[in-house]
Amino acid sequence: MLIKYGVISGFNSLGSAKDYIVASSAAVLRRQQFLIRSLGGYTDQTNQRRMQEVKSMSGTALEADSESILRAISPILDPNRHKGQAGKIAVIGGCREYTGAPYFAAISALKIGADLSHVFCTKDAAPVIKGYSPELIVHPILEESYSISGLGDEERRRISSKILAEVDKWMERFDCLVVGPGLGRDPYLLECVSEIMNHARRSNVPIVIDGDGLFLVTNNIELISGYPLAVLTPNVNEYKRLVQKVLSCEVTDRDAFQLLQALAKRIGGVTILQKGKSDLISDGDIVKSVSIYGSPRRCGGQGDILSGSAMNPAVLGCIAASALLRKAASLAFENKKRSTLTSDIIECLGRSLEDISPAC
Amino acid sequence: MLIKYGVISGFNSLGSAKDYIVASSAAVLRRQQFLIRSLGGYTDQTNQRRMQEVKSMSGTALEADSESILRAISPILDPNRHKGQAGKIAVIGGCREYTGAPYFAAISALKIGADLSHVFCTKDAAPVIKGYSPELIVHPILEESYSISGLGDEERRRISSKILAEVDKWMERFDCLVVGPGLGRDPYLLECVSEIMNHARRSNVPIVIDGDGLFLVTNNIELISGYPLAVLTPNVNEYKRLVQKVLSCEVTDRDAFQLLQALAKRIGGVTILQKGKSDLISDGDIVKSVSIYGSPRRCGGQGDILSGSAMNPAVLGCIAASALLRKAASLAFENKKRSTLTSDIIECLGRSLEDISPAC
Repeated sequence: MLIKYGVISGFNSLGSAKDYIVASSAAVLRRQQFLIRSLGGYTDQTNQRRMQEVKSMSGTALEADSESILRAISPILDPNRHKGQAGKIAVIGGCREYTGAPYFAAISALKIGADLSHVFCTKDAAPVIKGYSPELIVHPILEESYSISGLGDEERRRISSKILAEVDKWMERFDCLVVGPGLGRDPYLLECVSEIMNHARRSNVPIVIDGDGLFLVTNNIELISGYPLAVLTPNVNEYKRLVQKVLSCEVTDRDAFQLLQALAKRIGGVTILQKGKSDLISDGDIVKSVSIYGSPRRCGGQGDILSGSAMNPAVLGCIAASALLRKAASLAFENKKRSTLTSDIIECLGRSLEDISPAC
Repeated sequence: MLIKYGVISGFNSLGSAKDYIVASSAAVLRRQQFLIRSLGGYTDQTNQRRMQEVKSMSGTALEADSESILRAISPILDPNRHKGQAGKIAVIGGCREYTGAPYFAAISALKIGADLSHVFCTKDAAPVIKGYSPELIVHPILEESYSISGLGDEERRRISSKILAEVDKWMERFDCLVVGPGLGRDPYLLECVSEIMNHARRSNVPIVIDGDGLFLVTNNIELISGYPLAVLTPNVNEYKRLVQKVLSCEVTDRDAFQLLQALAKRIGGVTILQKGKSDLISDGDIVKSVSIYGSPRRCGGQGDILSGSAMNPAVLGCIAASALLRKAASLAFENKKRSTLTSDIIECLGRSLEDISPAC
């Protein structure tokens, strides 16, 4: 849900994204028209009024008016719409070692209102992820080095092409890719995923990058550099590595906003959501902070909820996703205290959204 | 959660652990500094005052003031901390036959506040354990004899080295290993696990030993002998075998405290938590008892909760873990009576902790 509204808000509020899109190809126009069409229920006037409201919320204050933004970009539920119009996302992740993270990201998207949620993972990971939930569409197509060991270069290339063709069949249908939750760091797999990202970029599909996806792009910054539809969601350590690599300096307590802004600018106007006690968000132009709600629990997996919810290229979507997760985490903590798990937070996403932005 | 506070309490209250650590290498200092750093939110004074309070709770009475100890070693939740700082544990266990026990141990750690919980198990066990919960990180790396039958000695050694290298990659990140839940007794697998324990010991990682891990160390006592960061959690029968092997005598109803103390001393100052109607705990120096709460249900798996919660080398951690489990078991029994399962008790861990030591 946040996907499309975030993207459309992005078109309106982010200079860099807008310029890029205006300057770009027919494919972008198709996607833009599709996104606007997906607003369906609104008259042009209603839509324009809402977007005006959103823009006015940006303001100059550092702390974002995140609840108003979430309300403004939540789609109004309309019985005339059909399956898919509230969002179709794909998570690229899940390998022999990790299966929880891609599940958390994919199910979170559904829990905040998306219609369809796909996972592209390795053959080993697929049955496990399918087992977590019958709601997900899981494609067992990625390969790790160990599963192709003994094959020659040509055969490996043939397998890569097949994987890429398989993802390409679906690419145009997705409103957003989430690359990284539980992806692992296998070199062969990361090479394939780099190609998938290149294809997504050529099709102007927004890409949210988290977890091992951040490991990949930190070492291959050209994958997302200058792509305004990329959103990076680093935690403390991932952020440190990114700053070291891109800006060749260390992260200190001072000048946090300037550093984040400089980083986003240097990567060419991508949006960065830096997770922490307060979440900081920048696209290289503006910097915003979200510090409402939240919980002191730091159980592994919360970042995957965020990447599954953020799934849009613009600052507004990040602000909304941040507020949504922080409220859900605070609701879960109220009830479960220290025993709060990521699954408990996911169960509160619906109430969090409903409390902030009632469906009707 | 109990990990770090237990370890730190251990530094302060247990002579043997402290001496060992002071006398030991730079790696130990790094770990100690890390643990102390992880106290983050406290001023030195606050921390020292808390530790004074804990020490004064030891007293001379046999029955430990377990609730006060649990309260004192529960970390104060602090929004400035990040993922991992409340504890990262790894369970070594799970084979073709057993998958429940390692799950119980690993999920219990999360339910009492740890941030990340890993399981290292056989390839067969992994998809099943992953399927129990997306919250766990499960590494399918161990091998049993049947899966390497037909291979020569050299190839077997090569596979062992690979397994060891795989665990070593992670070792420094763990605050505690739990060795044994659902490990099985396959000779090849136990040989690998012995090597893993040797490596953990060299890195000064605390090791909690339960289930088939106790079978392993009973027959290879040198694995833990003289290691003050080892905690053994035997039930009645495991305790009998340990006493027979180490002290060459039988367990009788008389002199239970002296016998436990002698056993812990003979193994070189490891901590032993003897599970029973009352739990008895000794490090060869002092002996303490925990008999509050508890349930008459003896469903298999409760020991796995304890090993997942105890995860610290010191008597204080054992006392706190014992009280926590006994209260959870009593809450579950109140509700489920004869039908109480280990999963029901795990669901009560959060309330048990919250009742004794409120999060805020």
